[in-house]
Amino acid sequence: MSTDPAPSTAPPGDGLAGAIDDLPLVDHHVHGALAGDLDRREFEELITESDRPIPSWMTQFDSQVGFAILRHCAPVLGLAPHADPAAYLARRAELGAAEVNRRLLGASGIGHFLIETGYRGDEILDPAGMARVSGRPAEEVVRLEAVAEQVVAAGTDAAGFADRFAAALWERSRTARGLKTIVAYRHGLDFDPRPPAPAEVTEAAGRWLRAVESTGRIRVDDPVLLRHLIWTGVDRGLPLQFHIGYGDPDVDLHRGDPLLLRGLIELAEPSGVPLLLLHCYPFHRHAGYLAQVYPNVYFDVGLGVNYTGARSAAVVAESLELAPFAKILFSSDAWGPAELHHLGALLWRRAMTRVLGGFVADGEWSEARAVRVATMIGVENARRIYRLGDATCP
Amino acid sequence: MSTDPAPSTAPPGDGLAGAIDDLPLVDHHVHGALAGDLDRREFEELITESDRPIPSWMTQFDSQVGFAILRHCAPVLGLAPHADPAAYLARRAELGAAEVNRRLLGASGIGHFLIETGYRGDEILDPAGMARVSGRPAEEVVRLEAVAEQVVAAGTDAAGFADRFAAALWERSRTARGLKTIVAYRHGLDFDPRPPAPAEVTEAAGRWLRAVESTGRIRVDDPVLLRHLIWTGVDRGLPLQFHIGYGDPDVDLHRGDPLLLRGLIELAEPSGVPLLLLHCYPFHRHAGYLAQVYPNVYFDVGLGVNYTGARSAAVVAESLELAPFAKILFSSDAWGPAELHHLGALLWRRAMTRVLGGFVADGEWSEARAVRVATMIGVENARRIYRLGDATCP
Amino acid sequence: MSTDPAPSTAPPGDGLAGAIDDLPLVDHHVHGALAGDLDRREFEELITESDRPIPSWMTQFDSQVGFAILRHCAPVLGLAPHADPAAYLARRAELGAAEVNRRLLGASGIGHFLIETGYRGDEILDPAGMARVSGRPAEEVVRLEAVAEQVVAAGTDAAGFADRFAAALWERSRTARGLKTIVAYRHGLDFDPRPPAPAEVTEAAGRWLRAVESTGRIRVDDPVLLRHLIWTGVDRGLPLQFHIGYGDPDVDLHRGDPLLLRGLIELAEPSGVPLLLLHCYPFHRHAGYLAQVYPNVYFDVGLGVNYTGARSAAVVAESLELAPFAKILFSSDAWGPAELHHLGALLWRRAMTRVLGGFVADGEWSEARAVRVATMIGVENARRIYRLGDATCP
Repeated sequence: MSTDPAPSTAPPGDGLAGAIDDLPLVDHHVHGALAGDLDRREFEELITESDRPIPSWMTQFDSQVGFAILRHCAPVLGLAPHADPAAYLARRAELGAAEVNRRLLGASGIGHFLIETGYRGDEILDPAGMARVSGRPAEEVVRLEAVAEQVVAAGTDAAGFADRFAAALWERSRTARGLKTIVAYRHGLDFDPRPPAPAEVTEAAGRWLRAVESTGRIRVDDPVLLRHLIWTGVDRGLPLQFHIGYGDPDVDLHRGDPLLLRGLIELAEPSGVPLLLLHCYPFHRHAGYLAQVYPNVYFDVGLGVNYTGARSAAVVAESLELAPFAKILFSSDAWGPAELHHLGALLWRRAMTRVLGGFVADGEWSEARAVRVATMIGVENARRIYRLGDATCP
Repeated sequence: MSTDPAPSTAPPGDGLAGAIDDLPLVDHHVHGALAGDLDRREFEELITESDRPIPSWMTQFDSQVGFAILRHCAPVLGLAPHADPAAYLARRAELGAAEVNRRLLGASGIGHFLIETGYRGDEILDPAGMARVSGRPAEEVVRLEAVAEQVVAAGTDAAGFADRFAAALWERSRTARGLKTIVAYRHGLDFDPRPPAPAEVTEAAGRWLRAVESTGRIRVDDPVLLRHLIWTGVDRGLPLQFHIGYGDPDVDLHRGDPLLLRGLIELAEPSGVPLLLLHCYPFHRHAGYLAQVYPNVYFDVGLGVNYTGARSAAVVAESLELAPFAKILFSSDAWGPAELHHLGALLWRRAMTRVLGGFVADGEWSEARAVRVATMIGVENARRIYRLGDATCP
Repeated sequence: MSTDPAPSTAPPGDGLAGAIDDLPLVDHHVHGALAGDLDRREFEELITESDRPIPSWMTQFDSQVGFAILRHCAPVLGLAPHADPAAYLARRAELGAAEVNRRLLGASGIGHFLIETGYRGDEILDPAGMARVSGRPAEEVVRLEAVAEQVVAAGTDAAGFADRFAAALWERSRTARGLKTIVAYRHGLDFDPRPPAPAEVTEAAGRWLRAVESTGRIRVDDPVLLRHLIWTGVDRGLPLQFHIGYGDPDVDLHRGDPLLLRGLIELAEPSGVPLLLLHCYPFHRHAGYLAQVYPNVYFDVGLGVNYTGARSAAVVAESLELAPFAKILFSSDAWGPAELHHLGALLWRRAMTRVLGGFVADGEWSEARAVRVATMIGVENARRIYRLGDATCP
C-alpha cells in the first residue's frame, strides 16, 4: 500500500496559535493613521461608522469595538486589560499620538500595508508616513472616484472628461498596487453592469459639470459616470476593490448586497482583473458564494472584524464556508486611530486561531492544513494577487 | 504610572449568571396573557406564528418552542423537566389558568410590562389585569392602526379623518408609554417614507371608507394612510415601535427587511423620536447596523428568542455585534399562554448568560462589563427611552 | 401528583451519536454517482459548484469540501485521514471507480435514495444502477423542465404543447416519488405565481418553438412556460421539490430567496401538495420561517452541508430554529463523485450529533427527544411525505 501517506506531521499543540501570531500579515485594504492627538469626543466619533454626534446618554466605548480597545490596546499602552475609558484616554494623551501610533502599529505585526488614499487623505498619514512609523512597506490603492473628482477640480469640459480621466488614472496609479471603487456609496450595487457608450459618458459628464457649477460641490454619483470609472479601472488592469456591505450611513445597505454584482462579474471575467469584495458584512456568505463560482472574485470580512469585537470569530467562521481558501484575504479597513489598525490584525489572529483551532480540535482539519490556510488568507493570497514580490509596473 | 487602573474588580465566578437572574427586566413589547383555560388544539395553535390548523401528522410541541415549554415551564407547574405534552397539559388544566398565569408570570422576574393592546385585546388580560396577576407595573403601548380603525368604526367622513385620528390618538395615548405600527403587516416596509400631503390623506380616507362600506370590513392597508399614521405618531412624540421581520404569514417577509426603513429613519431623525425595531429575525444583523449608524434607532430580538428555543443564544449573540449596547432592548412579544411570557424572560437570561459568559471566559470582556451590558439591555435602556421613572404625561 | 411524568429515560451517554450513526437515512434529493474513473482535473471540477476551469494558481482541494474528502473519505479507501490530494487520487485510481463507489455508497448508511434524473442523467448511474451498487432502494424524482424539453425534442406544435407535456409528465412519473423544478435557475423565484391561461401557454410555446428552430438549442426559460410546468406538477399531485439558493453560477442568487415563493405557496396550499425547498443556503433561515407558518412547506440544507464541510454543523444548527421538526429533511444533492454521496450523509450525522448533543449537554433537550428529532429529519419525515412504505401509484 505504497500510496498510504506518511503520518500527519502537524506542529505541536500550540503550533497553530504561534504560527498565526507570527504571520507578517498583508493588510490589503487600510487607510492611514492619524498623526495628531484626539480628545474624547473626537476619539469616540472615530470608533463608529456613524457620522452623527455621539448622543449625550451613551458612550461609544459601550460597544464591541470599544470593549476590544479597552481590552487589547490598553496593555500596549502599559495599562491593565479592561481599562476604563477615561484612564485609557488619559494614558493615550500622556504618551502622545506619535508614540501611540508607533506602539500600536508596531505591535500589530502587519508586514505590508496597501493603503487606500481616497478618503480624507489629507488628515491622515500617507503611505510614506505609514511606512516610516511602522517600519514596514506601505503601497497605494487609488480610489477611482477621487481621481475623477480631481480631474473635474482641475478643470475639464464634458467632451474631454473621459480622456482626461484615463490619463489621470494611469498617472495616479503608476506605482499603485490596486484600485478601489465606492459605487456602493455613490449609487448602490444595483447598476447596469455594461460599460456606457462614449456619448453617454460625455452627456453624463456635462450634467455633472453643470451640477458642480450650480452647487459648488464636486461629488460624482451619476451611475453612468460611476460605471465608466469602473470599466476604465478594469482597463487599467490592476486588482479592483469594491466597498461592499456595512459602512457609514451614506451607504444604502439594502442596495449593497454583493449578489447584485453578478452581471458585472461576468462581463469583467474575460479581462482577468481580480475583483476584491471588501467587508461584505452582513452579506459575507453571499460573497463566499461568488468567490466559489467565479474565478475572478475574492473577498474579505475587513471592517466587520473590528466592529464585532468579541463576536468577530463568528464572522470569520462564516467567511470560511463556500469560498476556496485561495480566494479569501485579510484587511483591517482601519482609518484614523491606530487602535483600529492594531485590532484589525489582533482580532483576526484571535478569530482564526479560535475557528481553525476548533476545526482541528473537532478532528475535521489537520493542524498543518490549518496553518497553511491561515498563511494563505493572511499573507500569500494578497502577495499573489497584488504581485507584491514584483516591482510596480507603470 | 498613576494612570494605571486598579485591578479588575469583577464579581466572583458565578456573579454574571446570578446578576442576570436577578434583573427586574422591562418587557418593552408584550401582550396580555389569556385568562381562560385551553384545550390541546387551542394551546398548540398559540405556540406558533402560523395561523393554519396544526396538521394531523404533526404536533407543534415538536419544535424549539415546544421543547422549551416542556423543559422550562414544566418545573414551574411542579413537573419534572422534559415532560410529555399530554402530562404537561393535564397538569396545566389541573392547576387552572389563573394559577398557571400566577406561577409563570411571577417566576419570570419581569419587573415592568409595556403592553401593546392592539391585537385581539378583548381576548387577553388588559394592562390592569396583567399588573394584578403579576404584581408588577403594566403600562400601555398603543397600536396606531387599531386607533385608526376605531375612528372609522365610530364614524367619520374622509375630510374629517385626519383630525379625528389625531384627536383619538392623543386621547388613547394619554397615559401610554409608546406607540406601535404594523405597517410591515399591512403593506411591507418598502413604502414612500415621506409624510403624505393632507389632500392625499383625505383622498385615501375616502377610498378606505368606500371599501369599508362595500365589504363591511374595517382594515387599514392603504400605504398613504399607513404613512399618515406613522407621521402622526412621530408628531405625538412617544417612542415608536415597528414590527420587523418574522411574524405570522400575514407578513410578506421579503418586504420586511429593516434596511427598507432607511429613508423614514433619516426623515424622522430631527424629531428625536426613538424608533424601536422589534424582533427583526432573520434580519437582526441589519437592525444592529441601523442602530449603530442612526442615533434614533433601537432594536430587540423579541419574538425570535422564544421561537428559537435552544438556539436562542445564537440569535442573541448575533444581536450583539454592531449596535452600541445602549441601543439594544429586551422584549418577549408574548401573546396568550403565559408560557410565552415566562420563556421570553428565561430564555433571554440563559442566552445572555451563555453569550456574555463566553466573552468573559475567552478573556474578551471583564465580568463587570458583562453585568453592566446585561443590565443596560434588560432594564436600563428601556427605562431611559420610555422614561419609566417619570409620571406619564398627556 | 399523579400527572408527574416518569423520570427521563434517555439512552446512555453516547446514545445520541450511536443512534444517529445507525439511522438508515432517506436521501430525498440526490443524483447518480459517476461510473467511470476521473483524472485530477475532472475530479476537482466536480467538487465545486463553479462551472469554470480551476485556475492554475489554486486547487479545489483547498476548500471545506476538499478538506472533508481528504479527512473522511480517505479512510474508506484505506488511507489515513488528512491524506494529500495526490495520494488520495492515486489510491482512488488504484481501486477503480466501481470499487470506490461500492465502498463510499455502502459506508454512507443511506437507506433509500430518491434520485433526480434530470441533470446530465446519461453521464451517471441511473436509479437501477444506484440500487445495484449500494444495495438499497433507489427511486426517481422527475425534473419538470427536462420533461418539457423532451416533449419539444420529440416534436410538437404550440397548440399541442400543453396536452403533450401533461401526457409525458404522467407517463414519466408513473413510478416516481416526486417532481422537481429548477425555475430558480431558469428564471429566478420572482415570478408571477398564478397559473397562466391556456392561451398564454400556447403563445409562449410558440415563442419557444421558434427560438428552438432559430438557435437549435432546446432550453425552457420562458416564465409563462415555467409557471405552467409548476402548476401542471401541482396537478400531478406528487411532492414537488424546488431548487433554492446556492448552486452553480447559472443561478442568479439575488433572485433565489425562498421568501419570493410566498404567493405560489399560498396559491398551492389548497392542493395539499408538499413543496420541498432544497438547500436554501444562505437563505435557510428564511426557509425555516416558511416551514413554520405554511403547512405545505418543507425544507433541507442539502448542498449546503457538503460544501461547508467543517462548518456544516453551524449551517445545520441554523436550520433548527423556526421550523417544526416534522418539516425538515435530509438530502445530499450529490452528483458525480461518490465522495459527495458519502460526505452528505457523514457530515449531516456529525453535524446533528454535535448540534443536538449540544442541546442535551446544555440541559435544553432530553436525549430521547434529540434521538427522535434526528430520526424524524433523517428518515421519518421523508418516508411520510413520499409515502415510501407504499407501492408507487400511477
